[in-house]
Amino acid sequence: MSIIVVGTMAFDAIETPFGKIDKIIGGSATYVAYAASNFVKPIYQVSIVGYDFPVEEMAALKKRGVQMDGVEIVPGKKSFFWSGRYHEDMNSRDTLVTDLNVLTDFNPKLPDAYQDAEFLMLGNLAPSTQISVIRQLKKRPKLIVMDTMNFWMESAMGDLEKVLKDVDLLLVNDAEARQLTGQFSLVKAARAILKMGPQYLVIKKGEHGALLFHGDNVFFAPALPLEEVFDPTGAGDSFAGGFIGHIAKTGDISFDNMKRAIIVGSALASFCVEKFGPTRLKEIGKEEIEGRIQLFKDLVNFDIELV
Amino acid sequence: MSIIVVGTMAFDAIETPFGKIDKIIGGSATYVAYAASNFVKPIYQVSIVGYDFPVEEMAALKKRGVQMDGVEIVPGKKSFFWSGRYHEDMNSRDTLVTDLNVLTDFNPKLPDAYQDAEFLMLGNLAPSTQISVIRQLKKRPKLIVMDTMNFWMESAMGDLEKVLKDVDLLLVNDAEARQLTGQFSLVKAARAILKMGPQYLVIKKGEHGALLFHGDNVFFAPALPLEEVFDPTGAGDSFAGGFIGHIAKTGDISFDNMKRAIIVGSALASFCVEKFGPTRLKEIGKEEIEGRIQLFKDLVNFDIELV
Repeated sequence: MSIIVVGTMAFDAIETPFGKIDKIIGGSATYVAYAASNFVKPIYQVSIVGYDFPVEEMAALKKRGVQMDGVEIVPGKKSFFWSGRYHEDMNSRDTLVTDLNVLTDFNPKLPDAYQDAEFLMLGNLAPSTQISVIRQLKKRPKLIVMDTMNFWMESAMGDLEKVLKDVDLLLVNDAEARQLTGQFSLVKAARAILKMGPQYLVIKKGEHGALLFHGDNVFFAPALPLEEVFDPTGAGDSFAGGFIGHIAKTGDISFDNMKRAIIVGSALASFCVEKFGPTRLKEIGKEEIEGRIQLFKDLVNFDIELV
Repeated sequence: MSIIVVGTMAFDAIETPFGKIDKIIGGSATYVAYAASNFVKPIYQVSIVGYDFPVEEMAALKKRGVQMDGVEIVPGKKSFFWSGRYHEDMNSRDTLVTDLNVLTDFNPKLPDAYQDAEFLMLGNLAPSTQISVIRQLKKRPKLIVMDTMNFWMESAMGDLEKVLKDVDLLLVNDAEARQLTGQFSLVKAARAILKMGPQYLVIKKGEHGALLFHGDNVFFAPALPLEEVFDPTGAGDSFAGGFIGHIAKTGDISFDNMKRAIIVGSALASFCVEKFGPTRLKEIGKEEIEGRIQLFKDLVNFDIELV
């Protein structure tokens, strides 16, 4: 089973209480591809980069089964650049620089070879771009997952409402769920979002784990209690990549299998935060991932006999 | 198996975004007793009240198997009174009034009949008072659990360090764990606290659940995602009461059984927050509690086959 991944491929500059890095590759589609390619091939990448995006980074992704036919390379422009500084609690950050560069021209065209994909992961992008990708698909995928952010709620709410009607699962963080609905209670926010279109909703709470909602069902996965979160950049996208990777590998979109996918996503996110950018994601393999999933089992597993 | 519960019995005035109540019974020992008495009898209560503490509230506790021989009634003084206002997020509150009243005279003397208790729950009190109770016991209980708060870290750190060496399990919230150790990472804070004396540590994170640490083992229990937290007053003490109640009922202090106790504690806390003060705790019975524990099982239960 294959996955189309739409999102950014970029350069980041990151500052955390533990250190600083001036230039490292990032972007939502980069993290999703690194995480998902542990589970399924091919990954059909859809993105846009400038002349400066390193060929060796492209090659590293290709080697993992990430197809680059849908990644446009713009010769005369630079890649998208983001720079941010995390606060001590690692849950909040200041954006220092956002240089859109090539991203202003992003108007993705799906290669024909991508049309057989069963799964679609729409990274955080303008809702109009997300809609355009969905419309280019001749056959509706088995599952469409989308990410978004507060910026689009403020600047493109109409388009966002449209794309929400067309997707199966929305991935947002707690603050975004609250902003989207005006509800402080996440349970109430979830109920409101499930009325906007998606049948499934994942609310990511960072170090406090993630919630999966579907009808009246709720599932909760903790984040792994880590000694240090070194760099949270890309954790949400790694979560998304692990989630959609597990779903695509199994081809099973039942609620029970989504629970497993949430745990797999949480495991990938827990690796991502251990080093700068996608560094740690590049290092891990099947064995590390299974070991980490076992930690999650140990972390939450209990049995009580009810009479 | 019986439990000695040491703590306050008091009046509270509470203001939340959902309402206001001028006078309701409260106090750590009240909540612990209400929660624990679902699982085991007798509860040996140790506290102090003034002439104004309602006889019908005493009678209601006695009816649940809470013995009052260790509750001193001071005729000429009023009961401890606390008043607070919760902020919209319900995770933070302002204390408006603290009238210690009888609490200034609290110098608990354990009745002889209490000496056979196998479990000791030390509610949040001056560490010197907690030490005095431990010293009065002729036989060391099977498990000593203690609660504390930031106030004692600032005003009585020496005594607090002493009592920590004498207890088996410390219950604190995340902010307290950080303050006690100067570590922001809860994993590092836990490691530091486990070196101070207790073999077990529970870090309560309110709506974000609770962590149990023992050696290199960690267990995580979520809080139930609730539509509304109506009043968080007493949730931590209800958690403690459910925890020690389950431990005493089973007589089993293994790590695996503590996991179950954490879930039971979380279930009791989830009831407590549904109405003002201990109102909801007075209403629930075995059936409601088992139903709630089943919700916790459904909330976190997943199975992944690892190859």
